[in-house]
Amino acid sequence: MSGPERSGRGTRAAVLGAGSWGTTFAKVLADAGCAVTLHARRPELCEAITETGENPDYLPGVRLPRTLTATVDAALALDGADVVVLAVPSQSLRANLTAWAPLLPPDASLLSLMKGIELGSTKRMSEVICEVTGAGPERVAALSGPNLAREIAEEQPAATVIACPDDDRATALQAACHTPYFRPYTNRDLVGCELGGAVKNVIALACGIAEGMGFGDNTRASLITRGLAETARLGTALGAELTTFAGLAGLGDLVATCSSPLSRNRTFGEKLGRGMSLEEVQRETRQVAEGVKSCRPVLELARAHGIDVPLTEAVVKVCHDGVPAQLVLKEIMSREAKPE
Amino acid sequence: MSGPERSGRGTRAAVLGAGSWGTTFAKVLADAGCAVTLHARRPELCEAITETGENPDYLPGVRLPRTLTATVDAALALDGADVVVLAVPSQSLRANLTAWAPLLPPDASLLSLMKGIELGSTKRMSEVICEVTGAGPERVAALSGPNLAREIAEEQPAATVIACPDDDRATALQAACHTPYFRPYTNRDLVGCELGGAVKNVIALACGIAEGMGFGDNTRASLITRGLAETARLGTALGAELTTFAGLAGLGDLVATCSSPLSRNRTFGEKLGRGMSLEEVQRETRQVAEGVKSCRPVLELARAHGIDVPLTEAVVKVCHDGVPAQLVLKEIMSREAKPE
Repeated sequence: MSGPERSGRGTRAAVLGAGSWGTTFAKVLADAGCAVTLHARRPELCEAITETGENPDYLPGVRLPRTLTATVDAALALDGADVVVLAVPSQSLRANLTAWAPLLPPDASLLSLMKGIELGSTKRMSEVICEVTGAGPERVAALSGPNLAREIAEEQPAATVIACPDDDRATALQAACHTPYFRPYTNRDLVGCELGGAVKNVIALACGIAEGMGFGDNTRASLITRGLAETARLGTALGAELTTFAGLAGLGDLVATCSSPLSRNRTFGEKLGRGMSLEEVQRETRQVAEGVKSCRPVLELARAHGIDVPLTEAVVKVCHDGVPAQLVLKEIMSREAKPE
Repeated sequence: MSGPERSGRGTRAAVLGAGSWGTTFAKVLADAGCAVTLHARRPELCEAITETGENPDYLPGVRLPRTLTATVDAALALDGADVVVLAVPSQSLRANLTAWAPLLPPDASLLSLMKGIELGSTKRMSEVICEVTGAGPERVAALSGPNLAREIAEEQPAATVIACPDDDRATALQAACHTPYFRPYTNRDLVGCELGGAVKNVIALACGIAEGMGFGDNTRASLITRGLAETARLGTALGAELTTFAGLAGLGDLVATCSSPLSRNRTFGEKLGRGMSLEEVQRETRQVAEGVKSCRPVLELARAHGIDVPLTEAVVKVCHDGVPAQLVLKEIMSREAKPE
């Protein structure tokens, strides 16, 4: 895979959030030639990253570039940044960003790696960013695609989509993260990219549930097909382009997440499908999968726009209404709508 | 999953070809209430099926319904059949059908389970059927979807598409194979269904090759996304409906085949990707995957219509031009087209 060598040279990037995807993307930016500062909340994590050149908590075994520095000081990370990458859990974005807003350089591009819909407001992440920071929509972008962090951290070739209404910013962001193993494409359809990313976590939960119940690849393929259809129905109702859902940020991301054992949402669903309760799974995995939180706001959005989203509805029932997975999946299978 | 009980009652069906999918579909028809005769070429296989109630060669361990009978006598199988199911390897359809044509009941519906394009003629299976039998196109249908045989034989819930230009025949075929675990939908887009089925074997080979080379789920998801796009481009040029490719016979079938360890094409590709030659893989698997044969006619079709099909081209290079998989995949990755 060829790519412009160090096309990010001269760009200062701040990555806020040092989970597995934030850390991986910080590595991508550094490999593309950017000067990157990774901000983590916990001092001990920053120290570990600085001292060992690894993120022992979220990306053990992956050597981070020497040019990448980590800091607990958000002001330091943001100072002079051309690109600000937001990589915190979706539901904590508003609170985090409220603290960071005064520190943001006034013309920096704000790039969201998050895949969720805000509880309560049913807002997409870019909407929350504009609202909290006052930034114009032209400054805000989202990155989405079949991007399992671990594989990219290992420099396996992958492609992604950067969606931004402003073409110049999109191109600049593309250059900032283009490496021989990571190939970004630009797109103007921010709504489609964000929605594809958020709903796929919900569909991945459904696939995991089916898998946990013992269903095989035929069932998963049917769920992916119907899941993409319901995402596209909702997306186009919200103003997205239909073609986005057939691309890397729609189908691509959905297939990767629904197939991979690396996907948290799928794994979470698998445990639900095996009969564990939401609380039991949370206790075991010590975290909540994004889809568990996003499924309700996705359903609310769909209802507000009169769109039928039977898979999302099923996931909400299992995750939040205490309906046994067995019962919900049987219902889904039997009332399956005409697919074509 | 609910379904009309025994909606196939009163229908006589002949299934020609006792491989794993033919045998599985014969079971589905019998479970739906049809009187089913399965025709196999080899007497010892027929005897085994009759004596043990299992197909030991292609579906070991699966109990076949008692109402299903097996015969080497094609005339006996076809006598009085309302539905004739064709389930032989794509490239041997013409020769087989030439022998069977005089035995076909004049008004029987002819249902193709085959997923391939004929070498030389670049014809779809339904075209070969019309040509050889003289049947009008309204009598010919194709069945396609995420239908890994083994899972359906185990009665895991699955859905499929029956494509037929004649609505009444489509509905009759639907009733003939509708069981509590197998749910057929009807569609008029025969071209789209057949093309989706044929090209997915080629894309599954590409996914297998990538997997054999050590690539993970991001790469596979990208290949599936791009593979579906190239299938849809070719299909619509041939007169198919774009929506068919977003449905069970397009995306659904593709995802199931590209993900499953049960897929012959994917497994075949995996061995190629690990560096084995075509001949070595053939020797080891004792059969040639459909995609290996279909990739060339698919490429010819595409060229005749001026459609770019880079993945199919890559598979042809690996399978027939002796180009090392390593080289081809690198090329594919580096010249990856703009996906959106």
